[in-house]
Amino acid sequence: MIGNLVVFGVGLIGASVGLALKEAGAVGRVVGIGRSRENLRRALDLGAIDEIASDAREAVPAANLVLLAVPVGQVGAAMQAVAPWLQAASVVTDVGSTKRDVIAQARHHLAPHLARFVPGHPIAGAEQSGAAAARAALFQGRNVVLTPLPENDVSAIAQVESLWRACGARVSTLPATQHDAIFGAVSHLPHLAAFALVAEIASRGDAPELFRFAASGFRDFARIAGSSPEMWRDICLANRDVLLEELDRYLASLATIKSKLACGDADGLEAIFAAARSAHRAWLTEP
Amino acid sequence: MIGNLVVFGVGLIGASVGLALKEAGAVGRVVGIGRSRENLRRALDLGAIDEIASDAREAVPAANLVLLAVPVGQVGAAMQAVAPWLQAASVVTDVGSTKRDVIAQARHHLAPHLARFVPGHPIAGAEQSGAAAARAALFQGRNVVLTPLPENDVSAIAQVESLWRACGARVSTLPATQHDAIFGAVSHLPHLAAFALVAEIASRGDAPELFRFAASGFRDFARIAGSSPEMWRDICLANRDVLLEELDRYLASLATIKSKLACGDADGLEAIFAAARSAHRAWLTEP
Repeated sequence: MIGNLVVFGVGLIGASVGLALKEAGAVGRVVGIGRSRENLRRALDLGAIDEIASDAREAVPAANLVLLAVPVGQVGAAMQAVAPWLQAASVVTDVGSTKRDVIAQARHHLAPHLARFVPGHPIAGAEQSGAAAARAALFQGRNVVLTPLPENDVSAIAQVESLWRACGARVSTLPATQHDAIFGAVSHLPHLAAFALVAEIASRGDAPELFRFAASGFRDFARIAGSSPEMWRDICLANRDVLLEELDRYLASLATIKSKLACGDADGLEAIFAAARSAHRAWLTEP
Repeated sequence: MIGNLVVFGVGLIGASVGLALKEAGAVGRVVGIGRSRENLRRALDLGAIDEIASDAREAVPAANLVLLAVPVGQVGAAMQAVAPWLQAASVVTDVGSTKRDVIAQARHHLAPHLARFVPGHPIAGAEQSGAAAARAALFQGRNVVLTPLPENDVSAIAQVESLWRACGARVSTLPATQHDAIFGAVSHLPHLAAFALVAEIASRGDAPELFRFAASGFRDFARIAGSSPEMWRDICLANRDVLLEELDRYLASLATIKSKLACGDADGLEAIFAAARSAHRAWLTEP
């Protein structure tokens, strides 16, 4: 049970955590801080938060746990805002899609409080954003990856794990470097691949004609190209070294297909497609 | 009303046409021809066909309309099989995802019958295949593109249009070259992009770990990598010239993103992502 939770950034993720914890009876009071008054009002109306605070100074001193639920690009500023008002016992966590950069920011802005800052990444979200899109079930059955610091108190890690379990999530732990490598491959790269394809088609003179005939295969492939440009800009820059390597691997894989296609290597093409399908099927049927 | 329909190749598409026409009361008798006896039995049990014929010689002389519903790679052999038994009045159509190659095969195998061969492409399908996956509603609201030949009789085109409208589809017409260019961009290229990405990840030593953390964004992006390797091999080879150009455009688009990422060009990345999202949104909200 979290007595007093401060949610810094009450968007889809922050507001959904508020709803989920309240539904689970796992929180006393939820206080929201954010830039958009209208969005905070929405969160209040939805019952995701109990109270709107005008700034960190007002809310953070009473917090048992502070959830930094702002985009990766704003997490440094959020840490700077909360740092002066944290009680020694308060636990802080975040929800960023990249972890090495968030940890670097924490070492800079939360240095005296590192024992109780536990980095986290809920693998949930959607193209929607804002409190209006929040729902209590957003994290049900989803993975949340924590990347604890060597300095972390065991009790702080346990509190963040409890928070996510109360939201219905499965919690696992990874070193930050491995986290960023894994999500570079299975999340950030696919986003770049989809953005690149849709942007390229959109740039053509006959784009309307092309889109008119796009069907369900295209729709699913391209869904992630509907994601927030600002958020993905920040994720790409935060995970730049990994993504540059991932892009090289992907460019090489496409170049292999291109050369097999150019020389009419039917068996070679089929082997690549079959390897993809078989990996895809194995993945789908995993427990 | 089609009196006697012969379906050559009773897979997902062929069997679904049988079911849809019967549900619409738009066909008298449906006769199936295929390689797998077990699959034909399934189609018969489902009511997609009324009768199994052992070969073209048995079925085709009585056909008012012959639907060649085999994969693109087998359409030449199918034409060769039906050609000797076609009545002068019979209409023939196909369902191939590429059209220039199908037309080339028709000019070769159906030369005396070109006036009544109308090439077609229903934009429907799924990762499943076989008669067991068939359903009457598969074409409801879907596009079917016809690419008529200069030689085509107007009445033959009209009969093929009626067939697809009876299945609930919207029918449009394109020149074959434009058809192949459009679907190269919005269907074949995305398939290659997904196959390339999934195959590349699957080739790594830590693939199981990577797939374990893949989430819904990856699932949708990668869905088309579950498609039939044989079918996609044939489509790629049939549309090779277009796809080589499409791959070059895509490689260039990815290279642009890579160079912007390498030099930390935040605004440049955001502009590409925003162009993709805005095109994607416009597409989703189109009527």
